[in-house]
Amino acid sequence: MPVNLPPPDPASLHPVAGVRLGIASAGIKKPGRRDITLIELAPGSTVAGVFTQNRFCAAPVTLCRQHLASGEIRALVINTGNANAGTGAEGLDRARQTCDAAAALMGCAADQVLPFSTGVILEPLPVDKIVAALPAARDDLAHDHWSEAAQAIMTTDIVAKAASRQVLVGGKTVTVTGMAKGSGMIHPNMATMLGYVATDAAVSQTLLNQLVKEVADVSFNCVTVDGDTSTNDSFILIATGQAGNAEISDSGSADCAALKTAVSEVAIELAQAMARDGEGATKFMTVRIEGGRDRAECKQIAYAIARSPLIKTAFFASDPNLGRILAAIGYAGVADLDVNSLQVFLGDVLVAERGGRAASYTEAQGAAVMKEPEITVRVLLHRGSAHATVWTCDFSYDYVKINAEYRT
Amino acid sequence: MPVNLPPPDPASLHPVAGVRLGIASAGIKKPGRRDITLIELAPGSTVAGVFTQNRFCAAPVTLCRQHLASGEIRALVINTGNANAGTGAEGLDRARQTCDAAAALMGCAADQVLPFSTGVILEPLPVDKIVAALPAARDDLAHDHWSEAAQAIMTTDIVAKAASRQVLVGGKTVTVTGMAKGSGMIHPNMATMLGYVATDAAVSQTLLNQLVKEVADVSFNCVTVDGDTSTNDSFILIATGQAGNAEISDSGSADCAALKTAVSEVAIELAQAMARDGEGATKFMTVRIEGGRDRAECKQIAYAIARSPLIKTAFFASDPNLGRILAAIGYAGVADLDVNSLQVFLGDVLVAERGGRAASYTEAQGAAVMKEPEITVRVLLHRGSAHATVWTCDFSYDYVKINAEYRT
Repeated sequence: MPVNLPPPDPASLHPVAGVRLGIASAGIKKPGRRDITLIELAPGSTVAGVFTQNRFCAAPVTLCRQHLASGEIRALVINTGNANAGTGAEGLDRARQTCDAAAALMGCAADQVLPFSTGVILEPLPVDKIVAALPAARDDLAHDHWSEAAQAIMTTDIVAKAASRQVLVGGKTVTVTGMAKGSGMIHPNMATMLGYVATDAAVSQTLLNQLVKEVADVSFNCVTVDGDTSTNDSFILIATGQAGNAEISDSGSADCAALKTAVSEVAIELAQAMARDGEGATKFMTVRIEGGRDRAECKQIAYAIARSPLIKTAFFASDPNLGRILAAIGYAGVADLDVNSLQVFLGDVLVAERGGRAASYTEAQGAAVMKEPEITVRVLLHRGSAHATVWTCDFSYDYVKINAEYRT
Repeated sequence: MPVNLPPPDPASLHPVAGVRLGIASAGIKKPGRRDITLIELAPGSTVAGVFTQNRFCAAPVTLCRQHLASGEIRALVINTGNANAGTGAEGLDRARQTCDAAAALMGCAADQVLPFSTGVILEPLPVDKIVAALPAARDDLAHDHWSEAAQAIMTTDIVAKAASRQVLVGGKTVTVTGMAKGSGMIHPNMATMLGYVATDAAVSQTLLNQLVKEVADVSFNCVTVDGDTSTNDSFILIATGQAGNAEISDSGSADCAALKTAVSEVAIELAQAMARDGEGATKFMTVRIEGGRDRAECKQIAYAIARSPLIKTAFFASDPNLGRILAAIGYAGVADLDVNSLQVFLGDVLVAERGGRAASYTEAQGAAVMKEPEITVRVLLHRGSAHATVWTCDFSYDYVKINAEYRT
């Protein structure tokens, strides 16, 4: 059983003034499945995004980068069931056809539309089905369809992922609401599968471009399921400017700090939800490295632990086979790491120090922590003040089953 | 079912003059299990080794490095059931006690003994059991015990791994015989779990030190099962000098080339045997990258494919979900890779080119190749003349089962 939190209560997802969402069924992979989401943004919205670093990036990712550079975005189109990745020039053409059709419906230019796709790679996008379903998605547009949209963008996800916050900015109540999907092929590099966070705050384009990177770095870029970086990772931050606050443009201002906290909280909740809902997950693991020389080496060690199939299978078995954690720390690639001066904790239990098992450690202590559904591995490096946290899940029979049977 | 070749016929393993092997049971993990191997080397032998780059290297690895630097090696002691890794100062002390006991039995100094351990990490080495079993191992010493020794060093391995060649060097018949163990926690960095290759050729110490690295680089350093680099990887090359050939010291000589070919063939056969016997393996995968700018980028892409849980589970399912291969090529980290100019082959079938699926490709072609137990993935980068090959296996339910239940 995944370590999911309960699905988001639709009533907890505050609508964002200036954002309407519509869902429809294009029957891309399964007939009747609601697989198309259209998001309409009010004029004057600012949008920023970060995308996968995968060289085989999907056609829609290429178009998103171009369109974000060229002007004001008015609509987003998201399809599941097909990633439109590894599809060459034909794939780009089909992504453009999607934008053309959405632009005609919404009364804007094609380069004001951002296209997103997620699903199987290397198969042609059934663009005709998408174009045919878009009018129904437009007719469905509503401010309170965040919960439905979070459902519609799922692939192997078991629960929909959405989160919402309200915060005072410049004396005005500002809303931040977001949704994401992702469960496998999750090892984001800059951003994750698909994540969307919208706020009605007014934010300058320059500051929004900075915020989207900073927020990704502490949220979506801190989660891994299987170490596979997707071809379609996209994280989009939208500011519609309808909350009535004075436009935030100073990254050092109290307003910026308040908004950044709210956006980060929403993004972290969504990112953690991916690891909780990781394919086949039965345990939610937090790997926290402290006392490093810099954040990079902390992340390097955290990812070595979080990616290790040996550690993840031991967690699945609730087996405190903690030597595997030492091995991963040792091969993480921090060349001058002194293994005799670091400490490893499992939950609150000191497991290892001075290069070996802690004198106080007992197998019973380790076994007790391993029985929990949510476990923190903490490594104190004692060589600096940097830290990093990565979230992941265990590795179970069901991961193999889900990915062996993905296309059947 | 693992993709193992038949276990080596004991008669095919030529004894190496100057090398005797003895096996005994210390009952380290299971009573009665033959878990101790003693190898005696005749005076005048030269020995070279490469070891894990894991910072948490095991106590015996630390001692091996010291003893190889200090003088002539006369004996090796190998135990399974306990890795003596993550055991701190106490672990080093226990590895030294093993050397002391072996030295007393063999009539040599303690620093002429190389100790090796493999098994569970973070648990104290039961050195008393090892010391008690060593006399029986000495009494068992014989030139023709390679097959028994290959059995005795196994842990989760299903078949014993040994190989042998004879070759003419300087007019003399020279024998090269080796054995290895390894099935999980396999992603060698410099060398692999445990590999031993002995020859009766006379080879200078300087050349042997060079050969052990060059051979490791094309054999044990080209295999991965789960991406986890062990704490105990060791590859040892022994030359006893009893074949009667003139000592080989020139790396450019025909004699060196002939010997290197024989040693490499034995080492490659042993390395491939680890992937064939990878934990839970049902398929043997060869990943070959050609046309790269340098060997490093070829290996980088080969390992991205060979480590991907998504690709390995698809191979387990015989599902030609080949988009996952494109995704792995894309995230391998070769920053300026042009995905539109590379080609991907599955067996002899052209799967992808020009950034997408090849026009000639059909699902039926892919499905036919995927049904085979041995599959080659070939990527032509078309940007240079370098190449690299990595061997691995698929990822099955049994990998999870073996590693979830490892300590039970």
